[in-house]
Amino acid sequence: MDRLEKQLQFIYEIDKVISIVRKTRLFHADKYENDAEHSWHICMMALVLHEYADEEVDLFKILKMMLIHDLVEIDVGDVIVYNKNQAHVEAEDMAARRIFGILPGGQGDEYYQLWREFEDQESSEARFAMALDRAEPLLQNLYRGGEDWRRNGIPYEKVIETNKKVEFGSKKLWNYIKKEIDECNANGGFDK
Amino acid sequence: MDRLEKQLQFIYEIDKVISIVRKTRLFHADKYENDAEHSWHICMMALVLHEYADEEVDLFKILKMMLIHDLVEIDVGDVIVYNKNQAHVEAEDMAARRIFGILPGGQGDEYYQLWREFEDQESSEARFAMALDRAEPLLQNLYRGGEDWRRNGIPYEKVIETNKKVEFGSKKLWNYIKKEIDECNANGGFDK
Repeated sequence: MDRLEKQLQFIYEIDKVISIVRKTRLFHADKYENDAEHSWHICMMALVLHEYADEEVDLFKILKMMLIHDLVEIDVGDVIVYNKNQAHVEAEDMAARRIFGILPGGQGDEYYQLWREFEDQESSEARFAMALDRAEPLLQNLYRGGEDWRRNGIPYEKVIETNKKVEFGSKKLWNYIKKEIDECNANGGFDK
Repeated sequence: MDRLEKQLQFIYEIDKVISIVRKTRLFHADKYENDAEHSWHICMMALVLHEYADEEVDLFKILKMMLIHDLVEIDVGDVIVYNKNQAHVEAEDMAARRIFGILPGGQGDEYYQLWREFEDQESSEARFAMALDRAEPLLQNLYRGGEDWRRNGIPYEKVIETNKKVEFGSKKLWNYIKKEIDECNANGGFDK
């Protein structure tokens, strides 16, 4: 198969990620967010919020990382962050190999490596990308007074514990969000 | 208002673009694409297809441009490319001023200018971004044998005439797509 045709095959394949629905709802519509909408929205967050990264970051690399970070869910689906386990981690790696493998050699390797870097959290860009990936559903949930945490039975302590990763990328963002979560809790936003 | 709060206000506001539904459907689902899905998908196209740009291009700039290019539709809606007029162009400029105006000064100006650059088609990045913005619905329509062109009563000549802009960014992509459109036409894909 010709190089361009392989690339277009990838463009068609990744369209499937639009059918992967997440566990949090949009800010302005009573609709659950899909992975493409989420990826776009966290890229927009990176554009306007990268000044809050604690380490020096390459915004270009962050954007590429975020655009591709959820493609593996085409094969393995969206698992709520509170329920991830080792079998799931391995299935994601298989999915990444299959999906990026559709691309011509060099290009497929480049994006597989970038996806691995995000998962392994081994660079400042991976840490800031993860911070925004976690911050977005927190902001969405806070916007609705914690409704989706109550629906999914997630207690305050678990939200704090699981999302402290925001702090590894940006202390300033985490301080802001932590304060909002505490306020939400004080206002009865979590089941007791 | 504090700088971070203005930025978050912008993050909340742009979520509305997810409610703007386009006139073309996804590759794999019988669902019309929204602006966020579209923006994400053409960014992915830029990642894997930028080698086909006729001029030298800065991929980072292209990604930023594409992420923001449809935000104006929050105020003015999606108008099918075959029906754009001057009043619409002016309304889009007003919308850009309002939406990017939510951001702190320097940041708002930067993204307004980037949006203007795309609209004015005055750089190699703007031309290649436009080529992909046009190419994506063509590929979607071709994937469905031209069904949405027939639904909207768009004849073959108008599709060619309006989308020749793809050629200004990438002759190779246009040659490929033009051949596919011709084949679609030969197979009865357009109303006569």
